[in-house]
Amino acid sequence: MNAPDKFASLLALTREPFPASTKSYLAGSQPGLRVPVRDIQLTNGEVVSVYDTSGPYTDPAVQIDVRKGLASVRGEWIAARGDTEGYEGRVRKALDDGQKAEDGDRLAQLRAEAAALQRQPLRARSGANVTQMHYAKKGIVTPEMEYVALRENGRREWMQQYMQDAAREQRLAGNPLGASIPKIITPEFVRDEVARGRAIIPANINHPEVEPMAIGRNFKVKINANIGNSAVTSSIEEEVEKLVWAIRWGADNVMDLSTGKNIHTTRDWIVRNSPVPIGTVPIYQALEKVGGIAEDLTWEIFRDTLIEQAEQGVDYFTIHAGVRLAYIQLTAARRTGIVSRGGSIMAKWCMAHHKESFLYTHFEDICDIMKAYDVAFSLGDGLRPGCASDANDEAQFAELHTLGELTQIAWKHDVQTMIEGPGHVPMHMIQANMTEQLKTCHEAPFYTLGPLTIDIAPGYDHIASAIGAAMIGWMGTAMLCYVTPKEHLGLPDRDDVKQGIIAYKIAAHAADVAKGHPGARARDDALSQARFDFRWQDQFNLGLDPDTAKEYHDETLPKDSAKVAHFCSMCGPKFCSMKITQEVREFAQQGLQSKAEEFNRTGGELYVPIHRAD
Amino acid sequence: MNAPDKFASLLALTREPFPASTKSYLAGSQPGLRVPVRDIQLTNGEVVSVYDTSGPYTDPAVQIDVRKGLASVRGEWIAARGDTEGYEGRVRKALDDGQKAEDGDRLAQLRAEAAALQRQPLRARSGANVTQMHYAKKGIVTPEMEYVALRENGRREWMQQYMQDAAREQRLAGNPLGASIPKIITPEFVRDEVARGRAIIPANINHPEVEPMAIGRNFKVKINANIGNSAVTSSIEEEVEKLVWAIRWGADNVMDLSTGKNIHTTRDWIVRNSPVPIGTVPIYQALEKVGGIAEDLTWEIFRDTLIEQAEQGVDYFTIHAGVRLAYIQLTAARRTGIVSRGGSIMAKWCMAHHKESFLYTHFEDICDIMKAYDVAFSLGDGLRPGCASDANDEAQFAELHTLGELTQIAWKHDVQTMIEGPGHVPMHMIQANMTEQLKTCHEAPFYTLGPLTIDIAPGYDHIASAIGAAMIGWMGTAMLCYVTPKEHLGLPDRDDVKQGIIAYKIAAHAADVAKGHPGARARDDALSQARFDFRWQDQFNLGLDPDTAKEYHDETLPKDSAKVAHFCSMCGPKFCSMKITQEVREFAQQGLQSKAEEFNRTGGELYVPIHRAD
Repeated sequence: MNAPDKFASLLALTREPFPASTKSYLAGSQPGLRVPVRDIQLTNGEVVSVYDTSGPYTDPAVQIDVRKGLASVRGEWIAARGDTEGYEGRVRKALDDGQKAEDGDRLAQLRAEAAALQRQPLRARSGANVTQMHYAKKGIVTPEMEYVALRENGRREWMQQYMQDAAREQRLAGNPLGASIPKIITPEFVRDEVARGRAIIPANINHPEVEPMAIGRNFKVKINANIGNSAVTSSIEEEVEKLVWAIRWGADNVMDLSTGKNIHTTRDWIVRNSPVPIGTVPIYQALEKVGGIAEDLTWEIFRDTLIEQAEQGVDYFTIHAGVRLAYIQLTAARRTGIVSRGGSIMAKWCMAHHKESFLYTHFEDICDIMKAYDVAFSLGDGLRPGCASDANDEAQFAELHTLGELTQIAWKHDVQTMIEGPGHVPMHMIQANMTEQLKTCHEAPFYTLGPLTIDIAPGYDHIASAIGAAMIGWMGTAMLCYVTPKEHLGLPDRDDVKQGIIAYKIAAHAADVAKGHPGARARDDALSQARFDFRWQDQFNLGLDPDTAKEYHDETLPKDSAKVAHFCSMCGPKFCSMKITQEVREFAQQGLQSKAEEFNRTGGELYVPIHRAD
Repeated sequence: MNAPDKFASLLALTREPFPASTKSYLAGSQPGLRVPVRDIQLTNGEVVSVYDTSGPYTDPAVQIDVRKGLASVRGEWIAARGDTEGYEGRVRKALDDGQKAEDGDRLAQLRAEAAALQRQPLRARSGANVTQMHYAKKGIVTPEMEYVALRENGRREWMQQYMQDAAREQRLAGNPLGASIPKIITPEFVRDEVARGRAIIPANINHPEVEPMAIGRNFKVKINANIGNSAVTSSIEEEVEKLVWAIRWGADNVMDLSTGKNIHTTRDWIVRNSPVPIGTVPIYQALEKVGGIAEDLTWEIFRDTLIEQAEQGVDYFTIHAGVRLAYIQLTAARRTGIVSRGGSIMAKWCMAHHKESFLYTHFEDICDIMKAYDVAFSLGDGLRPGCASDANDEAQFAELHTLGELTQIAWKHDVQTMIEGPGHVPMHMIQANMTEQLKTCHEAPFYTLGPLTIDIAPGYDHIASAIGAAMIGWMGTAMLCYVTPKEHLGLPDRDDVKQGIIAYKIAAHAADVAKGHPGARARDDALSQARFDFRWQDQFNLGLDPDTAKEYHDETLPKDSAKVAHFCSMCGPKFCSMKITQEVREFAQQGLQSKAEEFNRTGGELYVPIHRAD
C-alpha cells in the first residue's frame, strides 16, 4: 500500500489503549490543568497508576487528525502571562526544505498541508523573557510547574502500602547518591529546582501542544528517543508515526535528527503532533542550506535557522558551542577522533577559517533568541568519546569545562540549560563523568548517550549501553538518550525504536529504584505480588511491554486457562514448587492442631512461592 | 521432520565456523595439552584471537558423532596421577529415568544408545583425594591448571599494542575493586588460587571430555547457561543441540536442569557431548525417585543420586545445604517467599519432619563423595530473593553465613566450592551482597543469578538482569548465571538461549574491562579501530554476534560494496561526517604548506571520525 495508507493503519495500531488500561487525568488547580496517568486495572480489584507519556493518542475520547495537529494544552497559560506577541514570523523559503523550483507535486502537497498545520508564531514582547527559569527566579509558580509536580507524584492512593513500608524500612529507601528527592513533589519545589538550574521544563511558547515534563536529578529519570528521516529512506508520515510509537512505549522526549530534504516540513508535522518536547540539532539544517559545505556556514545562516525552528516550536536545541578551536588538536591522538556529527561540522569550520567557533563567540546572541521563545539549551558534547579507549580524555573534559562556563552565561539570561554527555565509557570510568559534570556544570541536568560500557556488541548496543545508562542515571543523570540495536549499523526501524526504548525504560526505572524515588518501587512490588499470586494477566499488564510478556507465555502455554493456572511452563503442574509449598502449608495446618509453637512460626505463615529453576 | 533429522540439520548449522575465523590451539608443555582459541582474520592483515568455549564443534577437522560422544582431553592426565580406579559402578535402575516397564521402544532405543556412550566410571582409590584443590594444596601444578593459565592468557602477540598502552596509561588500567589480576597468568598462579579456594576448576574425573576452565575473581568473568527438558516439551536430541548452541555463543558452563522422565539418559548424552563443565541440582532427580513427594526424600536416596551423577561425570552439584529449619520462618514475611525450587523442596522436607535438613547434617558425608570424583560444590541459595522487596533480607544473609561455614568444612576435605547468590536485587543493594559474600565465604567464588535490578520487565529480564550482572561481576562475582527473555514466562527456546547468552557475554566483558583484565579491552580497541577505518566486515566479525551485525547492516545497505563504503546508512554519502572530516584533512594539508604551526598541530593529525548522530 502507499505511504499514507500504511501510515493510517500503523497509527490506528499505536492508538490502541494498553491492555486493562484506562487513560485518566489528575485535576490541577484550574480547569485546563489535567495531568494524564495510565490506570491499570488488576484482576484482584486493585488499580495501579503509572506515568503516561503517550499523550492524547491513547485516549479513545480524543479525535486525532495528524493533518490538523494536536489540541493546545498550554495556549491559555501562555496568553495569560501577557508577555508574548503574535507576529507574521519569518518568511518561508524553499531552501528551508533544501528544495528547488522543480520539486514534485507530492512535496508541494505535503508543504501545503504543513503550512495548514502552522500556528501563528509567538515571541516575547520586546524586553520580555518568557523562559520557565525566568518566571521561577521571579518566584512565579507557572501552570507548567504545577503540571510537572502532579505528574511526578502520580496517583498516590494505590502506593500507600509501599510508602508506609518505605517509611518503616530504611532498607527500602534507596541510596540517592546526593540527590534530594522529597516524598511529595510540590509546585514550589519544582519552581525552586528550575530557578536554581537543577531542572528544566522544555516548553517552547510555540509548542502549546506539549504536556509539560521536567528533566532534573531530583525528578524521575527521563529518556529521549531519536527519530529523523535520512536521505530518502523514510517518509514524513513514517516519521510522525515513529514519534507516536516512541511515546507509546515511554519516550519522555524525542529528538528530530532529520537530514536531507524536507527537514522543515517534517519538523512541522512532528511538532504539531507531539505531546512531548521536541529537540533538534539546528546545525544540521544550517549545513543543508549551504549545500553541505561546512566552511560556508555563517552566523547569519545559523541565526536564521534558530529563529526558523524556534517559530516552529522546537523545545530544545543541541548546540555544540563547546567545540573550541584549541580543543580540536586534543582529539588528534584518539582512536576514533570526533564521532559527533555536529562536532565534526564545527571542527571543520574552525579549521577552515582558523577561527574560534561562531557558536562560542555568538553565545550571548543565541541566548537572546532562546529566551524570546523559551527554547532550552542542550549543550552538545561534540567531543564525546566514540570508543572505550577515548573515554574521559583531555578533549572530552576540556569541552565539559567550557559547557560549564556557557551554562553560567545561559543562566545569566535565564535560559534553561542541560548538558550532553558520555558515549563510550567503561563502567569504572562512569562516576568520574558524573562527578566532573556536577562540579563544573553547577548541577545543570546531565543528558547522556548511554554510555556504552563495551565496544564489541554491534547489534546489541542497546544492552551494552543500558548497563551504563542505569549506572549513570543512579549517579545523577537526569535524562538518558536511548541507543537502538541498530546503533553503528543502520537506521532504526519501528521495532528497533521499541527495543531501544524498552531497554532505556529499564535503565531509567532501575535508576529511580536505586535512588529511592518515592513510588518507583511500588510498581515492582505490585507486579511481584501478582507473580506470587499467579495472577498472570496482572503480571503481563504491569510490565513495560504487556504484549510481549503475554506472547512469550502463550508460546509454551497458549490456553487462556493457563493464564489463571497455579503453575508455569518451566516445570509443568507435577513438579511446580508452588504445588510443593501448598503441601507445606497443609503440613503447617496439621502442625497448628497437633504440634508445638515452632510449626506455627515456621509453617503457619507459609505462602506460595513463584517458580524459578536454580 | 522428525526429531533426529531436525537435530542433525540444526547441529550442522551450529558447527559452522564463525565468519573469517579459524580454530587454532596454543601448545602446552606436553603433546596432549592444546588450548583452543578462535583466530579472527581481519581485512587489514591483523589477526585477533579470542577465548573459545565452542569446543571441537567449530573445528572442521574434527568428526563429531553425538552417539559416540567427544574424544577425551584429560584421560591421560587422570590416569597418570595413578590415584583413581575403574569399577563397574552403580547398577542402572529404570527409576533413574523415572521409568516403568511399559516404556515405549523409542525410549528403550535412546537408553541403549546412552548406555553405549557410557564410559567405565572411575573413582578415587581408597583413601585418595582426587580434587584439583587437593593437588593444589600439595603444591602440584596439574595439566588442568596449566591449561587454564594458557586459556586465560590467550594469544598475547596481537594485543601487544594494548598491553603497552595500558602500561603507558593508568587511565586504561581499570579498577579491580580488590581483585589481584596479574598481567600474565602462570600455572603456578592458577595453582595458588585453587589452593586458597579463590578459584575452582570444575573437572570430574568421569568427564575427561571437558576443556578445563577456571571460575574465580582473578580470572575472566564466566557465564553459565541453563538448559534442561521439562515435562515432555523437548527431546533429548534437542537438549544436546541446545548445549552445542549455548557454547557456540559463549557459555563457559552449562547446567542441566532437566526434570520429569529420562533425566539420567538426557544427562548421559549431555555430559558425553560437552566440552564445558556440566552442573546439576541432584535434588531434582532424587525427588523424581520418590514420586515428587518431598517428605519421602531420604539421605540414602539422595546419596545414591549423587553417586549416580558423579559416575556420569557431572562437574558440580548445586546443593541447598544452607536452607536450615530455623531459617524457613524468616521467609514468612516475604513478598514472594522461597522462589528456589531446591529451596522449597528442602523447606517442605524440614517442615514435614520438623528436622534439620539432611543436606546440612550429612554435609561431611557429601564431601566424601565429592572428593572421590572431584565434583565441585555450588552451594545453593535456596533463600535468594524473588523480588526487589525481599532483597538482602535476614533469610538471605542467614543462609549466606551458613554457606560460609560449609565452605570451610568443604575446604577441610579439599573439595572445590563456589557460592550461589543474588536473584532480584536493586542496584544500590548489590554491593552489600558482594561484600557480605567475600567476608563470610572467605573469597570462595561467587556465582550469581543476575541480579535483576527491577521487577517490571517480563519479556526483557535478560536486560534488567544484565545490568546487575555487569555490576556484580565488576565487584568480584566469578560466574554469572544467565537469564533469558523468557524468564518468569516460559521455557527458553533456541533463540532465547542465544539472547540470554549474548546479554551475559556483554555483562561479563563489561566487568572484565572495568576490572582491567589484561587484554579484555584489546578486542574493543580492535573493533573500534575497524569501525573508525570503515572496515565493516572486521567490525561485524569482531563482535559478539557477527551474523546479526551483518544482517542489520544489510537491512539498510544490502550491497557488498557498502561493506567497504566510507559512509554508513545513517546519513548517506552526502552528509557523512567522515566525508566532512576528510575535507578537514585536506584543509590541514594546505595548512602544512601555507600556514603556521597551529594548523600543523590541529590539522596535520586529523583522522576520519565514525558517524554518530548526536
